[in-house]
Amino acid sequence: MVPFLLTFLFHAAGFAQKLDMKALDKIRQEGMSNSQVEAIAHQLTDVSGPRLTNSPGFQRAAEWSVGKLTEWGLQNARLDEWGEFGNGWQFEKSYLAMTQPYYMPFIAIPKAWTGSTPGLISGDVAVVELNNESDFARYTGKLKGKIVLVKGEDFDAGPTFKPDAVRLTHEDLDKLTNSETFGGQRFSPEMLERYRLMRNFRTKVDSFLKAEEIQLELIRRNGRHGTLFTSNGASFQAGTPDPGPAFELSNEHAGLLQRLKNSGMEVKVEADVKTRFFKEKTKAANVIAEIPGSDRKLADEIVMLGAHLDSWHGATGATDNAAGSIVMLEAVRILQATGLKPKRTVRIALWSGEEQGIYGSRNYVKKTFGDAERMMLHPDHEKLSAYYNIDNGTGRIRGVYLQGNEAVRPIFKKWLEPFGDIIDQPTLTSRNTGGTDHLSFDAVGLPGFQFIQDGIEYGSRTHHTNQDLYERLVMDDLRQMAVIVASFVYNTAQMDKKMPRKELPKPVAR
Amino acid sequence: MVPFLLTFLFHAAGFAQKLDMKALDKIRQEGMSNSQVEAIAHQLTDVSGPRLTNSPGFQRAAEWSVGKLTEWGLQNARLDEWGEFGNGWQFEKSYLAMTQPYYMPFIAIPKAWTGSTPGLISGDVAVVELNNESDFARYTGKLKGKIVLVKGEDFDAGPTFKPDAVRLTHEDLDKLTNSETFGGQRFSPEMLERYRLMRNFRTKVDSFLKAEEIQLELIRRNGRHGTLFTSNGASFQAGTPDPGPAFELSNEHAGLLQRLKNSGMEVKVEADVKTRFFKEKTKAANVIAEIPGSDRKLADEIVMLGAHLDSWHGATGATDNAAGSIVMLEAVRILQATGLKPKRTVRIALWSGEEQGIYGSRNYVKKTFGDAERMMLHPDHEKLSAYYNIDNGTGRIRGVYLQGNEAVRPIFKKWLEPFGDIIDQPTLTSRNTGGTDHLSFDAVGLPGFQFIQDGIEYGSRTHHTNQDLYERLVMDDLRQMAVIVASFVYNTAQMDKKMPRKELPKPVAR
Repeated sequence: MVPFLLTFLFHAAGFAQKLDMKALDKIRQEGMSNSQVEAIAHQLTDVSGPRLTNSPGFQRAAEWSVGKLTEWGLQNARLDEWGEFGNGWQFEKSYLAMTQPYYMPFIAIPKAWTGSTPGLISGDVAVVELNNESDFARYTGKLKGKIVLVKGEDFDAGPTFKPDAVRLTHEDLDKLTNSETFGGQRFSPEMLERYRLMRNFRTKVDSFLKAEEIQLELIRRNGRHGTLFTSNGASFQAGTPDPGPAFELSNEHAGLLQRLKNSGMEVKVEADVKTRFFKEKTKAANVIAEIPGSDRKLADEIVMLGAHLDSWHGATGATDNAAGSIVMLEAVRILQATGLKPKRTVRIALWSGEEQGIYGSRNYVKKTFGDAERMMLHPDHEKLSAYYNIDNGTGRIRGVYLQGNEAVRPIFKKWLEPFGDIIDQPTLTSRNTGGTDHLSFDAVGLPGFQFIQDGIEYGSRTHHTNQDLYERLVMDDLRQMAVIVASFVYNTAQMDKKMPRKELPKPVAR
Repeated sequence: MVPFLLTFLFHAAGFAQKLDMKALDKIRQEGMSNSQVEAIAHQLTDVSGPRLTNSPGFQRAAEWSVGKLTEWGLQNARLDEWGEFGNGWQFEKSYLAMTQPYYMPFIAIPKAWTGSTPGLISGDVAVVELNNESDFARYTGKLKGKIVLVKGEDFDAGPTFKPDAVRLTHEDLDKLTNSETFGGQRFSPEMLERYRLMRNFRTKVDSFLKAEEIQLELIRRNGRHGTLFTSNGASFQAGTPDPGPAFELSNEHAGLLQRLKNSGMEVKVEADVKTRFFKEKTKAANVIAEIPGSDRKLADEIVMLGAHLDSWHGATGATDNAAGSIVMLEAVRILQATGLKPKRTVRIALWSGEEQGIYGSRNYVKKTFGDAERMMLHPDHEKLSAYYNIDNGTGRIRGVYLQGNEAVRPIFKKWLEPFGDIIDQPTLTSRNTGGTDHLSFDAVGLPGFQFIQDGIEYGSRTHHTNQDLYERLVMDDLRQMAVIVASFVYNTAQMDKKMPRKELPKPVAR
């Protein structure tokens, strides 16, 4: 029985149903006045440390999350194994310094999943330029015992006249609204092929350097002023032969070595790296927990929210992606603290293996909802209404990527309206955004969404860097995100129907 | 004999005489087309290393400069001792990492003139808050063997929405022209007194920590993203008892330690610092060289240009102040390469001891031109026309600080005119600018000038930081500066009269 005014509103907004403003006010009140984002952030970053998948740091963060979710009254909070990942790894000593022509300590991080030195070593620096296999011959027999800097890209290290931290301008948002190509494209087949060839060559370089019995490899990395962007790691697959030690080195310190060698000087460095592989347990797990639905008819339907908990190893992964995990944890805490009883079941997931290829979410979706390769669907495929993801750093929500699902536009438009005071120019773009866990859902035709966020320092300072530490988090933005996400999850749980879907995609063979 | 037109020009410009445009074109041509700034920069930064006064790095840079000045045909190039400075010092090992609750290497630099650890040490971290002497009692007997982080100022480490690198806007320059108080004030007596009290308290803190037999002191420093601003060092005076080891620690890593301790966690760090004092030779020297004047009557008059060559120890002091030294070296190289024969003698000085209190220039002026304390002047006081200084980083010249000497305004105005294409809005401000070596000349009533420069990253990233490396130099700006300085020096050498002076200041007792 729907009174006339409500019927009118319902029709005016298309198929969006009336919002429960009282519930949304409670959510906002709890998220803004009793926020726990600082405390959660401290635990996931400072206390847990770097959270490479299957490392002790990941385990600390995951176990703390399971405990906290249980304490907040979520059901069946657990580490949910999703299959084979590979070796865990962490570094336990990291020291690199130039000792000749004078002493200078370097900013450097062992490359993920690389090996150790036999204690403190010292050696002459050689700079080599290896662009294709024919370059190997020039160095054969000349590198034994050397510390080898592979001259890579000359990353710009000069002054920047643009701010490190940015927010989306109205112009940026207009472009997002109107263009399908602004940012966030999927990789083109050409790019993927180039990347594959590069990886292959990289493996050959590693074998060559190992065969030449170098002492240590140095790799110049992008960044400036002490900020160092780590690259991908070496192989983490079980059974991989132990690699030699390798440092990723700050742009300027690598530049210093290159210039000194270029001047014909004798340059020495000393190093001490100790890394540890964890090969006992190569299966990996996600953190999963639920708020059971309160409506008898809708309780077996599911609303999911998630973010990857794993990080790279150079810092504590504050914005990539403790931020998303903090927001998702805080969102379910808010729902519990308000005493609201969502009709549908709310399920939180903190993924692992994202950084190496969104493995955690892909495998979870595969076993729970369906297989994207053959488009074989499980019964629960029908049960999921929507999945919400956060993985673009610490910046506040400015809208949603619709992933081409235009049917959800009027729904999200209505949901964003009550938050006009905390979202400047709420923006919906039909656009896809790539590179993270909502794609695992999208790949099997499930509504998976990621929010549009202010960039802050994501591209300039934090994303995969040695500087992605607690200080990089903007707490006010995390608070806003948690409130918006909690409201979206709650609204999804209360809808008359499940979220509209796109057509089922064609199977994608990998 | 002056033709009518020239007489007219002469009068129209007040007392500024006609410029030798041919000479200025040669200077510009040489500086822009045959520039050596990259090569000089490489030597003073990369090859020499950090250049703390009386350190081997300073000595390398100074000796190279003497050699190069000689090679360019300057006369009497030499290391010119100015008196007692104190101990030389450098660090030869620098390693600091957290080992509990997990491993993380820290960005840290030994504080200048502090001591060594007995090899690799490890210990529990204690965070202490010491704001005045009454705080000592709380910690007495509790710090033995600890690694102590003295909780200092909570420097902001959050994201910045302003660019690291900036140039002066027209608005900034207008303010400089019109205001006497915009930036660069001298320290007020209140500030100096506060500073003195702080230093005294700091000494007491050091004594307290030493008496408590701590293993190592950690000091939180300003900066973000791996950039660390070093503070002043410990005492460099000969005869000072050997201090304990102390690290200056990056803002974020110090924040991490503080937050972990705040949560009641056990935190351990390990460290290895080796520093070396050079106590044999405690007298210090400036680099001095001359291009003898070509005019029989004017050759015993002098035009000076200079910059301090010494730096702090955390990096290679590229912008503070290799930049100024590069410009001054390049300026005399240009004068030599052009074959111009300045009428007056041109003398270059690369100072030492600037960072500890402009000692090198002050003592040079005292022995050469006059004593500011008693205003006792030497005969050469009459011979110096002007001194030009560069010490505000790598940014191009935008004008000159007149130091209240309004009589030079029309002269400099005319001199800047031919360079309108390489100086955007040439600006002359009556204002004083403080903190560097031209003040030593100003203090005895000699015309000493410093140029207005674009800031670039001086305040945000380079000035006294661990990131003041070669990459921070903007070569185009150095080229422009060298051309402008060479032209000013040449014009000064060719003037009919010496530069107008301000009234002789009153003696300033120290």
